[in-house]
Amino acid sequence: MKNVIILGAGRIGAPMALDLAADPEFRVCAVDNNPEILKVFDAVPSIRTIVSDLSEPQNVKETVRGYDLVVSAVPGFMGFETLRAAIEAGKDVVDIAFFPEDPFLLNPPAKERQVTAVVDCGVAPGMTNLLAGHVDRMFDKTEALTIYVGGLPEVREWPYEYKAGFSPLDVVEEYVRPARYVENGKVVVRPALSEPELVAFPEIGTLEAFNTDGLRTLLTTLDIPDMKEKTLRYPGHIEKIGVLRETGFFSDEEIEVKGARVRPRDVTARLLFPKWQLKPGDRDLTVLRMIVEGRRDGRNVRHVFEMLDRYDPATRVHSMARTTGYAATMMVRLLARGLYVERGVSPPEFIGRKAECVAFMLEGLKKRGIVYRETVSFPD
Amino acid sequence: MKNVIILGAGRIGAPMALDLAADPEFRVCAVDNNPEILKVFDAVPSIRTIVSDLSEPQNVKETVRGYDLVVSAVPGFMGFETLRAAIEAGKDVVDIAFFPEDPFLLNPPAKERQVTAVVDCGVAPGMTNLLAGHVDRMFDKTEALTIYVGGLPEVREWPYEYKAGFSPLDVVEEYVRPARYVENGKVVVRPALSEPELVAFPEIGTLEAFNTDGLRTLLTTLDIPDMKEKTLRYPGHIEKIGVLRETGFFSDEEIEVKGARVRPRDVTARLLFPKWQLKPGDRDLTVLRMIVEGRRDGRNVRHVFEMLDRYDPATRVHSMARTTGYAATMMVRLLARGLYVERGVSPPEFIGRKAECVAFMLEGLKKRGIVYRETVSFPD
Repeated sequence: MKNVIILGAGRIGAPMALDLAADPEFRVCAVDNNPEILKVFDAVPSIRTIVSDLSEPQNVKETVRGYDLVVSAVPGFMGFETLRAAIEAGKDVVDIAFFPEDPFLLNPPAKERQVTAVVDCGVAPGMTNLLAGHVDRMFDKTEALTIYVGGLPEVREWPYEYKAGFSPLDVVEEYVRPARYVENGKVVVRPALSEPELVAFPEIGTLEAFNTDGLRTLLTTLDIPDMKEKTLRYPGHIEKIGVLRETGFFSDEEIEVKGARVRPRDVTARLLFPKWQLKPGDRDLTVLRMIVEGRRDGRNVRHVFEMLDRYDPATRVHSMARTTGYAATMMVRLLARGLYVERGVSPPEFIGRKAECVAFMLEGLKKRGIVYRETVSFPD
Repeated sequence: MKNVIILGAGRIGAPMALDLAADPEFRVCAVDNNPEILKVFDAVPSIRTIVSDLSEPQNVKETVRGYDLVVSAVPGFMGFETLRAAIEAGKDVVDIAFFPEDPFLLNPPAKERQVTAVVDCGVAPGMTNLLAGHVDRMFDKTEALTIYVGGLPEVREWPYEYKAGFSPLDVVEEYVRPARYVENGKVVVRPALSEPELVAFPEIGTLEAFNTDGLRTLLTTLDIPDMKEKTLRYPGHIEKIGVLRETGFFSDEEIEVKGARVRPRDVTARLLFPKWQLKPGDRDLTVLRMIVEGRRDGRNVRHVFEMLDRYDPATRVHSMARTTGYAATMMVRLLARGLYVERGVSPPEFIGRKAECVAFMLEGLKKRGIVYRETVSFPD
């Protein structure tokens, strides 16, 4: 029996707590600064709850004391300091905060405390890293990695045909921050929203793919000369978002408007929030296609991974929470079983180097209805 | 020799002053609250200038004293009070302020002071009213009036492909205010931007037409069972503007954004202003198509008026200023010659009832390069 503490019990944290609590292997505690959010656990007496302001690293350290394993599902802006605090408290961590800082900055304290900290453990980043690390290990030479990924509402509502499980500010950040790729072995930078492509997906139809800055640790951990990740939306999204960006609605420079000073981006987030909010019961889907190309035993080989997941009406868990959260809870199980014991900061591509870890993750996700279908072909 | 005073010497006021000053019939004075704007007349000693804050009606009354005729080219929001002041000062007025209030509210004081006040004297409203009144008088029964009108930049720049000669706030107002039409003899209200149509124009190509609230006085002055006016833009404009409106960027309800209180519409106007500004030297065009259908002498008759005007590189006057301003200066000449002597508030459709007035207006505009081409056909 392992004691697991989940920091942040929101849209992804709560389904993770329920998933782990259903497992006799774990005793689960959920922490949030909002007691309202923790009420979801009133009907689940086996889950302990704690109200604590985790934006205070000292609170994190005190809260995690006595637990075997920490899951960090706090908002991105406080993710780095939360991870640092958990590491300094000497706890193994699975992290889905997706914070903007470089996680390897926490490698020295993690190694010193003999801690395993798995970061970016969602879908993309997350499972894509794991599978990329996996195929890269099998290949003699990996030549190209291409990732298409998107979380979308089932019901397409004009104008954006989009819902976010998280803050519109974070989505806007994706639409503004230049995208870093690897081309011919060099990091190149492209504007966000650039290089639109129409890509067909079974059961869904045509989606629009565009550049966003999603490779993160893969930029430095894998030696692949061509790597890119593109975000998927329903067609037409780029143009609408591009109009907003071009007009200045995403600018973070304060302007004066009739005596008040505001950042246009904050005004936009305020207006978009109610429109983009994925509400309880809203059906969403997650779609992923990842192509890894390279050479093995003198042949060209191409591995394609495809995943399509939908909102689960039985559990009322959004696909966004299922695909992200269950990747993290499977990683918790993987660490709890001692399948991966390297100390330090580990993005999932490190864990993907071990075939038994990959099999364990894929099998566990499959049991939860999330199938990463793999196709191998041998191009000329 | 008549003394004419022009209130407001901006983008339209200045070309009007120059047009009238070139005519030995007139002595011209231009008034503005901004001395910088009046500097354009430094090179034209025959034009007198006065700096005065015309948002004070008392200033209007004092300034117009001693003049024979007033042209009001002030911003719309102060147009009604400026017109009232000019009327109360006992002056004939030609008005292109396009204020939102009902001009007939000023009919009693205008009649009492024996004043002729021609309102809405631009293109549409303006020449469209004149020509509608003209054809309506010729017909036994006028059945339908359809107006398509737009001011556009020659160079189409993504995303809006639009420039405004005036405040973006006024344009936004057009995109928000419900459009009033007459259908089967009844006033109906449609959302702005609704009922998109693609309409082809020679030399320009396909434009997009949509509902805006442009009929103004025609709603009550002409007894035509079907009347509508639609605004023209380059195709794609409706969708982009619709996205902004749907998202709430045109809302005039204050919201709180990180402690500051702003109206989204003001933020939007602030961002759009530099993008939509028609700058000196920017080439623009004005396009109009107006269809009047009815019966005369037992036959179906259709009159189509078409006008296409462009920026004049010789005078560096924008088409928007040419078509609007010269309609007003021709009306000044028409009044000065005593061709129209009715007292009270007169929208141009009243003046259009007199064939010699219509001929005078069309002839004067033609001399300035602005041609309203008329085609008459007899449908089955």
